[in-house]
Amino acid sequence: MAKVKKQPRPKAETPKGFRDYFGAEVSQRKAMLEEISTVYQLYGFDALESSAVETVEALGKFLPDVDRPNEGVFAWQEEEDWLALRYDLTAPLARVYAQYRNDLPTPYRRFAMGPVWRNEKPGPGRFRQFYQCDADTVGAPSVAADAEICAMLADVLERVGIPRGDYLIRVNNRKVLNGVLEVMGLAEDPRRDDVLRTIDKFDKVGEQGVRELLTVGRTDASGAEIDGVGLSGEQAGPVLAFLTAKKDRVEDTLAQLREAVGASTIGNDGIEELAEIANLLEAQGYGPDRIVIDPSVVRGLGYYTGPVYEAELTFEIRDEKGRPRQFGSVAGGGRYDDLVKRFTGQAVPATGVSIGVDRLLAALHAKGRLSKETVGPVIVTVMDRDRMADYQAMVGELRAAGIRAEVYLGNPKNFGNQLKYADKRRAPVAVIAGSEEFDKGVLQIKDLVLGARIAETATHEEWKEQPAQFEIARGDLVSKIREMLGG
Amino acid sequence: MAKVKKQPRPKAETPKGFRDYFGAEVSQRKAMLEEISTVYQLYGFDALESSAVETVEALGKFLPDVDRPNEGVFAWQEEEDWLALRYDLTAPLARVYAQYRNDLPTPYRRFAMGPVWRNEKPGPGRFRQFYQCDADTVGAPSVAADAEICAMLADVLERVGIPRGDYLIRVNNRKVLNGVLEVMGLAEDPRRDDVLRTIDKFDKVGEQGVRELLTVGRTDASGAEIDGVGLSGEQAGPVLAFLTAKKDRVEDTLAQLREAVGASTIGNDGIEELAEIANLLEAQGYGPDRIVIDPSVVRGLGYYTGPVYEAELTFEIRDEKGRPRQFGSVAGGGRYDDLVKRFTGQAVPATGVSIGVDRLLAALHAKGRLSKETVGPVIVTVMDRDRMADYQAMVGELRAAGIRAEVYLGNPKNFGNQLKYADKRRAPVAVIAGSEEFDKGVLQIKDLVLGARIAETATHEEWKEQPAQFEIARGDLVSKIREMLGG
Repeated sequence: MAKVKKQPRPKAETPKGFRDYFGAEVSQRKAMLEEISTVYQLYGFDALESSAVETVEALGKFLPDVDRPNEGVFAWQEEEDWLALRYDLTAPLARVYAQYRNDLPTPYRRFAMGPVWRNEKPGPGRFRQFYQCDADTVGAPSVAADAEICAMLADVLERVGIPRGDYLIRVNNRKVLNGVLEVMGLAEDPRRDDVLRTIDKFDKVGEQGVRELLTVGRTDASGAEIDGVGLSGEQAGPVLAFLTAKKDRVEDTLAQLREAVGASTIGNDGIEELAEIANLLEAQGYGPDRIVIDPSVVRGLGYYTGPVYEAELTFEIRDEKGRPRQFGSVAGGGRYDDLVKRFTGQAVPATGVSIGVDRLLAALHAKGRLSKETVGPVIVTVMDRDRMADYQAMVGELRAAGIRAEVYLGNPKNFGNQLKYADKRRAPVAVIAGSEEFDKGVLQIKDLVLGARIAETATHEEWKEQPAQFEIARGDLVSKIREMLGG
Repeated sequence: MAKVKKQPRPKAETPKGFRDYFGAEVSQRKAMLEEISTVYQLYGFDALESSAVETVEALGKFLPDVDRPNEGVFAWQEEEDWLALRYDLTAPLARVYAQYRNDLPTPYRRFAMGPVWRNEKPGPGRFRQFYQCDADTVGAPSVAADAEICAMLADVLERVGIPRGDYLIRVNNRKVLNGVLEVMGLAEDPRRDDVLRTIDKFDKVGEQGVRELLTVGRTDASGAEIDGVGLSGEQAGPVLAFLTAKKDRVEDTLAQLREAVGASTIGNDGIEELAEIANLLEAQGYGPDRIVIDPSVVRGLGYYTGPVYEAELTFEIRDEKGRPRQFGSVAGGGRYDDLVKRFTGQAVPATGVSIGVDRLLAALHAKGRLSKETVGPVIVTVMDRDRMADYQAMVGELRAAGIRAEVYLGNPKNFGNQLKYADKRRAPVAVIAGSEEFDKGVLQIKDLVLGARIAETATHEEWKEQPAQFEIARGDLVSKIREMLGG
């Protein structure tokens, strides 16, 4: 072997903006995704796992908020092509559907879950690799498909542990928004984008703020002057009517929307679609306590062409400064009828939802649905190296009974280290056997959970009555430990 | 919105060497990985999911068979660093352990499963993204850790459905090989690599072939002359004694190995380790019918420093030309004590196994352990668009009973298309209801499984007796379909 030149040691660091997940973080996410996929499958959706790598050409420039191609993705050049990591699960679905459309059923209901990558500046809580969990229906033109996804999303949230009343799925329609822009005479106006961006700020600045931003401008909280879009008050009217159209009763909401879109055909089409979605969902028992028509939802101004929807968690959590705030959005989606067309030239209707997996997991943590820590394995300590086969036999019996167990495999000389290890593993029980125990056919059992509790709270009397360490017959190993773990 | 220039349509193609996985392919792999992780967890291993992206610096140049850095990986440049997709799960483990070593328990038992990427020339059955499923113990110097991994591997294979007798885990030790090279006077010889490469061909060319290749050279099957390494017959002796040392009884194998390594200290250390592994496993009931000491196993000549092991499936399958051959290797690993040292400067013992997920899935298919096709959802057809809410209510009831069900959401005009769709989805049952049925409070049920069987085989008489379509009361929907699916 050629001698390798001495090189400086590499740094042991996760690349900036990336994370590693340990133990419970992995298994809790897996368990949640398993629940979600159970619901998706009940609704007839089939699994798809597409390649993590796509051609840059196939991905296109549909990444939200990014104008230049390649920006926002991790890309590298192959001989002829540029390849890139997928930035979401929707663009790959469009490619897969276009590629396999002759073999796939129509409509094609598919779900997908996995990591996506974004080449963005990392920030606190903002990572460059994260999980998405999507369900989409391709090839179904009817809004019954949109309604179905909204109902399924409600089922998903309840299934993973968000109780009814703690979430709200809000539905809007891009066609209504387009109708409003038409009425304003802005459908083809260069200021259209400015208006859309302003609408997106409604959640933050409210009705009066949007009115100012659409017209003469406004001074924000920091005292900075923000330019207005320059519309007249008359032009701004329909936008504000649209944004504030949400009423207690669906009919009232729709009535106000009708006023906002006036004679616009596309606007009225959109309202009819919203009415149909509301009817279908109501008939299936998904009333406005769970799914509601709400025009203030303005999602990703990119590729949506019809209904858009968003799942919001309505319970309060404390922010970093201890102030109460609503948890906010955990999932969203909508209808995008033009994505497959990029490949095939033929319009293919499609609608779907993407769940923010990390956000939903954080919500389950906030609701106390996930235990912070999992219980570790039973640790069989090593008192006598020559008895290794006996120790292995013990863990073998425990595993055969479905109990996590392991022999301590570090250097056994310092017994204190073995107990420290058991503590670090959050082991519930340690098993101890030296030559004396082997001679007598017994084992020492250390109840580490009880031991920890006693160490914290018990009086000396209680400690004597509840010894955290006791002796059992060798033959009682499995039954005794099963009893301890069950209790 | 600025007008977008017309661009040529992108190609809808999976990038070369990458794949998409559909339906059962995804769920079968998931189910298999779930079984494997259950065994890993029983043995006390904890999940780790490290970032898919690493710095090139951290990955190093440990990719098997690759000499230049960056070769074989997908890499791209960031401002200061080069980043790359991981090519296996071992290099990231070394980085993670070095990074978090003060917080992790020692020993650290971890399992990991997920895709890895290799920038290699794609070929038939050779992909650039594939799954691995690893378990490693870091920080345990004793070969008890190696024995544990071998035992766990046997449990994994049986758990996923490879019966005892259909697999064999073969164990060797790199130290013995190093002892042989020492005896040959080749430990520091430039021909060392040539000898190692020759040994690796033992499976293909056999004892006589290796003898020729180590000495004067040989003519291969195609008539081509292959140069020999140029050793004397005397020098080649210990290598051949090593490679053919496997006997029926472990003691006899070890005795022959002792002869092969002579007075070499490292060689004899290696033999003692093999003896200890064999003893430990035998005591736990893992006899030579499952795990065997076999010096002909020469794995990845890269980073292994001690015991190496390989799981082979011993049943026969037919190759492309219909000839019987053994299924071959599905997992392998060994001890690598120097990987963490790259980062920290301190040697950290480590040993672990990697399961070839696609190979193992292929084996389960070959053994008939996986059904080729999964059953699709119940399809509720649409006879009357205005009754959509009623159809949705039906699938709602079925899902609430845990039965996969969906309403047909394509264009309902052509009823034949709805049945073709049900067929493509492999639906077991179609539910049909038009105005007549709604008026009478009944449903038509079409048994698509029976229907397909009748269409293929039944006589006219049988067909009349077993009508594949029949009427039920609306209220019996769930109970009747549950009965049909259970039967």
